[in-house]
Amino acid sequence: MTDRPDLQGLPLERKATLLSGQDFWSTPPVEEVGLPSLVLTDGPHGVRRQAGDLTGMGITDNLPATCFPPAVAVGNSWDPSVAERIGEAIGREARALGVHVVLGPGVNIKRSPLGGRNFEYYSEDPLLSGVLAAAHVRGQQAQGVGASVKHFAANNQETERMRTSAEVDERTLREVYLPAFERVVTEAAPATVMCAYNKVNGVYASQHRWLLTEVLREQWGFDGVVVSDWGAVDDRAAALAAGLDLQMPSDSGAGDRRVVEAVRSGELDAALVDASAGRVAALARYAGGPADGFDAAAHHALARELAAGCAVLLRNENGTLPLSSDTRVAVIGEFARTPRFQGGGSSNVNATRVDPALDAMRELAGRELPFAPGVGDDAAARRAEAVALARDAEVAVVFVGLADADESEGFDRTTIDLPAAQVELVRAVAAAAPRTVVVLSHGGVVSLEGWHDAVDAVLDGALLGQAGGGALADLLYGVANPSGHLAETAPVRLEDSPSWLSFPGEQGRVVYGEGVLVGYRGLVTQGRPARYPFGHGLSYTTVATSDLRAEVTGDDTVTASVTVTNTGDRAGAHVVQVYVSTAAGPVRRPSRELRAFTKVGLGPGESREVVLELGRRAFAYWDVVESGWVVAPGEYAVQVCADAETVLLEETVTLAGDELARVLTMDSSVAEWFTHPAAGPALVEALTATMPADAASPADQAVMLQMIGSMPMRRFAADFGSALPTDLLDRLVAETAAARTAP
Amino acid sequence: MTDRPDLQGLPLERKATLLSGQDFWSTPPVEEVGLPSLVLTDGPHGVRRQAGDLTGMGITDNLPATCFPPAVAVGNSWDPSVAERIGEAIGREARALGVHVVLGPGVNIKRSPLGGRNFEYYSEDPLLSGVLAAAHVRGQQAQGVGASVKHFAANNQETERMRTSAEVDERTLREVYLPAFERVVTEAAPATVMCAYNKVNGVYASQHRWLLTEVLREQWGFDGVVVSDWGAVDDRAAALAAGLDLQMPSDSGAGDRRVVEAVRSGELDAALVDASAGRVAALARYAGGPADGFDAAAHHALARELAAGCAVLLRNENGTLPLSSDTRVAVIGEFARTPRFQGGGSSNVNATRVDPALDAMRELAGRELPFAPGVGDDAAARRAEAVALARDAEVAVVFVGLADADESEGFDRTTIDLPAAQVELVRAVAAAAPRTVVVLSHGGVVSLEGWHDAVDAVLDGALLGQAGGGALADLLYGVANPSGHLAETAPVRLEDSPSWLSFPGEQGRVVYGEGVLVGYRGLVTQGRPARYPFGHGLSYTTVATSDLRAEVTGDDTVTASVTVTNTGDRAGAHVVQVYVSTAAGPVRRPSRELRAFTKVGLGPGESREVVLELGRRAFAYWDVVESGWVVAPGEYAVQVCADAETVLLEETVTLAGDELARVLTMDSSVAEWFTHPAAGPALVEALTATMPADAASPADQAVMLQMIGSMPMRRFAADFGSALPTDLLDRLVAETAAARTAP
Repeated sequence: MTDRPDLQGLPLERKATLLSGQDFWSTPPVEEVGLPSLVLTDGPHGVRRQAGDLTGMGITDNLPATCFPPAVAVGNSWDPSVAERIGEAIGREARALGVHVVLGPGVNIKRSPLGGRNFEYYSEDPLLSGVLAAAHVRGQQAQGVGASVKHFAANNQETERMRTSAEVDERTLREVYLPAFERVVTEAAPATVMCAYNKVNGVYASQHRWLLTEVLREQWGFDGVVVSDWGAVDDRAAALAAGLDLQMPSDSGAGDRRVVEAVRSGELDAALVDASAGRVAALARYAGGPADGFDAAAHHALARELAAGCAVLLRNENGTLPLSSDTRVAVIGEFARTPRFQGGGSSNVNATRVDPALDAMRELAGRELPFAPGVGDDAAARRAEAVALARDAEVAVVFVGLADADESEGFDRTTIDLPAAQVELVRAVAAAAPRTVVVLSHGGVVSLEGWHDAVDAVLDGALLGQAGGGALADLLYGVANPSGHLAETAPVRLEDSPSWLSFPGEQGRVVYGEGVLVGYRGLVTQGRPARYPFGHGLSYTTVATSDLRAEVTGDDTVTASVTVTNTGDRAGAHVVQVYVSTAAGPVRRPSRELRAFTKVGLGPGESREVVLELGRRAFAYWDVVESGWVVAPGEYAVQVCADAETVLLEETVTLAGDELARVLTMDSSVAEWFTHPAAGPALVEALTATMPADAASPADQAVMLQMIGSMPMRRFAADFGSALPTDLLDRLVAETAAARTAP
Repeated sequence: MTDRPDLQGLPLERKATLLSGQDFWSTPPVEEVGLPSLVLTDGPHGVRRQAGDLTGMGITDNLPATCFPPAVAVGNSWDPSVAERIGEAIGREARALGVHVVLGPGVNIKRSPLGGRNFEYYSEDPLLSGVLAAAHVRGQQAQGVGASVKHFAANNQETERMRTSAEVDERTLREVYLPAFERVVTEAAPATVMCAYNKVNGVYASQHRWLLTEVLREQWGFDGVVVSDWGAVDDRAAALAAGLDLQMPSDSGAGDRRVVEAVRSGELDAALVDASAGRVAALARYAGGPADGFDAAAHHALARELAAGCAVLLRNENGTLPLSSDTRVAVIGEFARTPRFQGGGSSNVNATRVDPALDAMRELAGRELPFAPGVGDDAAARRAEAVALARDAEVAVVFVGLADADESEGFDRTTIDLPAAQVELVRAVAAAAPRTVVVLSHGGVVSLEGWHDAVDAVLDGALLGQAGGGALADLLYGVANPSGHLAETAPVRLEDSPSWLSFPGEQGRVVYGEGVLVGYRGLVTQGRPARYPFGHGLSYTTVATSDLRAEVTGDDTVTASVTVTNTGDRAGAHVVQVYVSTAAGPVRRPSRELRAFTKVGLGPGESREVVLELGRRAFAYWDVVESGWVVAPGEYAVQVCADAETVLLEETVTLAGDELARVLTMDSSVAEWFTHPAAGPALVEALTATMPADAASPADQAVMLQMIGSMPMRRFAADFGSALPTDLLDRLVAETAAARTAP
C-alpha cells in the first residue's frame, strides 16, 4: 500500500486533475509523485466491474462476480456478521477484478414502501441500517478495498432524484436520516462517502457545506474522500467549497478548469484544492495489486449460507414448515425455476451462477418434484395446470413476487400489490391444496392482502442473491432454521405508511411531513396495526425471554440484561430486540424506537443471558434550540420486544437527564417567564406590588394568561404588561444567563 | 360618514400616531383634521364591548349583546344567508354599543380537530369558509360597521401561537389556507384584515411582506387597513414596511416613535407612513354615530331561527325524531338545563339571555318533562337517577358535550373524546331507554365512538349561541326541520386526521406535512372512512337528486345543473354539494374537492332545477413553477355528492386547459428534453449521427434513460452525453424560449 503521497511540489493544474475522474470509473494517476490510478465500481452486494474499457458508462456488460444477498435481505438478517462476511468477500473479488473502491453500502432509510431503490437499502430503522453497514465496511476494507457509504443524504426516492429537494427538519435528519451514516463514519472509517444527487432543503447535496463539512468532517471526524454520485455535481467550485473532493465521472476536465479559474480569481481558497487533492491522493492506500482471481465456488457457497440467515418466516400455521423429504410437494411459480434475486440499475451484478430453488428442492427431497410455472402467456391454462398439481400434493409451495421490470433504480413504484396474476395463482392454489406455502421474492415490500389468510405459511425471501434458490430450499426443508426478521414494516395498506401523504413530492420539492415518525415509528405511535410489523420473524424453534433487568450504570446510560432460552428441539438463532419508549422532553417522541439488538445462536434447550448497553444516545432526542443531543429528565421504558408492536418484557428507568439552564430572554414566552423557578415569583411579586387597584380581575388574569402564554415577553411588556418594571426584566435576563454559564 | 380625510399637512409625528391604538380598543383621534377615534372590539358571533374604560384589556366584564351561533355552527349551516343575517344583526348591535369595527369573521381552516379555536372558524374547507365569511362581512358592513377578516394567515393552532412558524408550501397556502381570505377580500371588501400572531415560513405574519402586500394588496386588490392581532407586532418598522397599517393595542407610543426614527434615519420610506396613516384615516367612513340601542328580543328570536339552520342531524334510525308533543320524553344531561353555547376567550359574549333546551322542550310539549342532570358530584347516583327516568320514558334525550373549560382560545385540545362520565351516561341511558337521542354541544369535533351504535338518533348542535336551546327544541319536536351539514369531518379516530403526524409541531415550528390533503381531502384520498364525513347531514324529509348535466360553457368553465326533488311530506332546506375530481396535472390532486354548493328550500313534493357555475378556479391547481393558477388539460369529474364520501351523480367533462409552453433550459431534465415534441427528435437524431459505433448498447441506453431521466441536461451533457453538440442544445433552448413568447 502506498501512503499519502506528497503533492506539495505539484502545480495547481496538476492537483486539480485529482479532483475528478480520468474516465467513467477511475481516478487519474499522477506519475510524477508515483500516484496510481484507482478504479471505483458499483456495489453494494457484488462487484459490478464493467467489461472492456472504462471510458463510458455501460450497464449490462460486466465481468462475472458473486451476487450476494442485496441489502434488503441483509437488513432482514439483523446480523452484522452476515454484512461483514459479504463485505469481506466483495473485497476479495474486487481485488481480483482490479477494483480499489466498491461503491457501497447504501444506508438510506426506506421512507416509503414505494422507494424504487429500497432493495439496495437495509431498513426503515437507522440503528439497524448503521450497524449492518458498519460491519459491511469493516469486512470490505479489511481486504484492502475501499468502501463508499451512500447516498449522503436524504436520498429516499427515485422520482426526480437528480433535482428534487428533500425538505426535512434538522431533528428528523439527526434522528432518522443521518445516524446510519454517522455510525459507519465513526465506527468503520470508510474510505469514501458518496454524496446524493438530490437537494436537501434547497441545496444540492454535492454543494451542501453543512452536510459535507460541518456534520460529516467537523462533527463526525470523517477524514476520507467525499465522492460525488455519478453526475451529481452542479457547480464544481461550489461543491469543492462545500467539501466535495472527487467529482465522478470525468467531465473532460471542465470541472478541474473551473476550479483552477476560481482559485486564480480568488473565489476559492487554494488550500481547499490542496486538502481535497491530498485526500484523493491518500486513497492510494487502497491501491493494492490485483489478487489472483477468487474462489467462485466458495463464494457461491458462502452466498447460500448467508442468504439462509436473511429470509423471514412470516407465518407458519400448524407446523406446515419445514417440509420433510417425503412430503408430497408441488412446486408452483415461475420464480422457482427462474429466480428473482437482485434489483435493477447500477447495482446489477453479472452473477457467476444462479441456483433455482426448484433444483435445490429436488436435490434435498432426493427426487423429482412436480412443477408448474402457474403464470405465463395463457394465464388461465397455466393456473389450471398449477391447481391440478396442488390438488394432488400434500403441500403446494408457490413462488410469487415482483418481476425485474417492476422495480429498479431510477423510478419509484406506484403500488405494493403483487401482480394480479400472481395473486390469483396463490388464491387458486390455496383453494385446491391441502396446505399452501408462499415464497416471496421482491425488492420493495409487497402487500399480503387478499390471500394471506388462505395460506398456511409464508417465507419471505425478498431478494437473496444468486444462491438464494438454494437457501430457500434449505429453509423449506429445515436444513437451515429461519432467523430473519423484517427490517421494514409490511403494512396492511400502502396508505398506512406515514409518508404516504407527501411521497414523492412534486414540482421540485418533497416535504418529509411525517418528521421522525417514519415507518414503524409512525405506525406504532398512530396505533395503526401492520400486517406484519417491523421486527417480526418466526423460527422452527421457540424461544422464551425472561428476567429483564435494566440498570442505570452511568451518566444516563443503561445496561439491560435478559435471558433467552431455546424451548424447542432445534438449534436456532434468535434476535433480541430492545426498544426504548418515553414521553420525556419538549418534543414528540415515537411510541417506541429500536435502540439495541443482537442475534444469538441457541442450541436446543440452551439458555443465555444477553447483556446490551444503551448509551445516552439511546435516550436522547435532537434539540434544535440547544443544537445538540439532549437526554430529557424523566422515565424511560426499556422494552424487549418480539417486534415493534409486541412488548415481551418492560422495565422502567428514571434518568437524571441533562439539566438545561433555563435562560430567559425577551423572546421567551410569558408562560416561560412565569413558570421559571426564579423569575416567576419575582414577576408575580412585582405585578402585585405595582398593579393598580382597578386592574384586571383575577378571573381576567387567569383567562389572559391562558390566552397569551405563548406571547414573547418583549411584546407582553410593551402591549399588556405596563406594570412590569423594565429594570426588573433586565435583571432577570442577566441572572438566568449567568446561571447558565456558571459551572 | 366621514370620507378619507386629508392628512397632507400633518407633521410626521402626528401621522405616526394613527399607526397604533390610543388605548386597548380605539384608534387615536386627529382633531386638527376632524378625524374621530374609532372603537374596535372583539367578535365574531356577537359584540364583546368591554365595560368601563378601554385603557386595559378586560375579558369577563362586557356589555350585554346577543350571542349568535358561533362560526362552528354557521359553518354547518352551509347557508350564506345565515352568516349575512348574523353580520347584519351584529352590525346593528355594534352601532348601538358605540363600536365601529367588530373583529371578525375568522376564516382559518380547521387543520386539526384539536385546534383550540376551531369553534371560531367555519370549516376545514376553504370554499365553504370563504362564502360564509363574505356573507357575514357584507351583512355587517351594510350596517356601517367595519369587519376584520382574521387571522391572516396560517393561524391554525393555539399551541405556541404567538411564536411558532407555520411551515407550509405555497401550493398549500394558495389552495387551502388563503382562498377564504381571498374570497372575502375580493367579494366583500372588508374594512380591515387582521394579521395573525404566528410566523409563516419563518417570518411573523405581522411582518410578512409577501402576505400583507404582494398577495393581499397587489394580487387581491385589498385597499383597507391591515390591523395587527392584539400584541402581534414584533418590530414596528419591519411591520410597516411589510404592509401592516395599524398596531393594536397601544404600546404607549413606542412603536410610533420607532417609525418616526426609522423615517428620519432613512430606514423607512415616509411614503409608507403616509399610505398607512391614510388607510387608517379612511376607516372614518365607519364612524357613524351611535344608534339607539337594539331590539334584544328580536335579535334573540333571530338567533333562535338561525341556530335551527345550523344543527346537524347525524343519525335518525326508525324515525325516532322528530318527537311529538305526546311522546313520553325523559330529558337527561346538565347541558339541557345549563346550555353550553359558545367558546372561551376573546370571542366570549355577555349574552342578553340564555334559553335552556329543557325549558323550550317543556314549552313545546306543553307540559312538564322529567329531567335528570346525569352527571355531577356523585356521578354514580346521578347516572342511576337518569337511567331510572330513561327506563320509564319512550324516548330519552341525552344532552352531552364538552364543558367550557375543555376548550378555549389559547390552548389546543389533546383529545376528541367526550369526558368519560358523559360517555358512561350515554351508554347507561341507551341501555335502559326504549329509544335514545343524543344532543351534542361542543366547539371542536368530538368522537362518537363507544356509544354511537347504541343510540337511535344524534343531533349535533356544536355551539348554537344563546338561543340554541330553543332551536334544539324546535328541531327535536319538528317545529324546524334539520338542514345542517358537517363543515368538518367527524373522524373515527383522532389519529386518522391527516395533520395528526405533525400537529402542533415543536420547538418553534409546525410542518404542514399533509400539504393540500387537509381534512376530507386527505381522508377521502387515503380511502379512510370517517364516522361521519364532511358534508353529511340528514333531514326529516327526503330529497332525490337527478338529471345532472355538466357543460363546458366557456374558457375552462362549466355550468352544472341538477334537479332536486323533495320526495317527503315536509318542507325542508336541501344543500346541493358539487365536487370536482381529477388526476390532471403534474401535482397530486385530492380525490375530491368541494367547488360549489347552494342551499335551497323545497316544499313537500317540490322539484327545482339548480344551476351552479364552476369557474376555472374550480379546476385549477396552484403551479409553483408557473407561479399561478393552472388548469391542466384533461378530464374532470363533476360530482354531486351527499357528502365527501358519497357520490350521487357524476358527469365527466374534458377541459382544454392551459397550454404551457414547454421551455427547455439546461436545468430541464433529460426526460423533459427527450420527450419534448420538438427538441426530443432533434436530440435523438444528433445522438444517432454522432455516436461512435462502440457506444452504449440499446439495452444500456434504455436502462440509462430510466436511471438518469431526472438529471439536468447541463450535467448530462457534461458527464454522460459528450456526443451532444453544444450548439444544438443552445439552439433548442432558444427555440423553445421563442415559442413561449410567441403569441
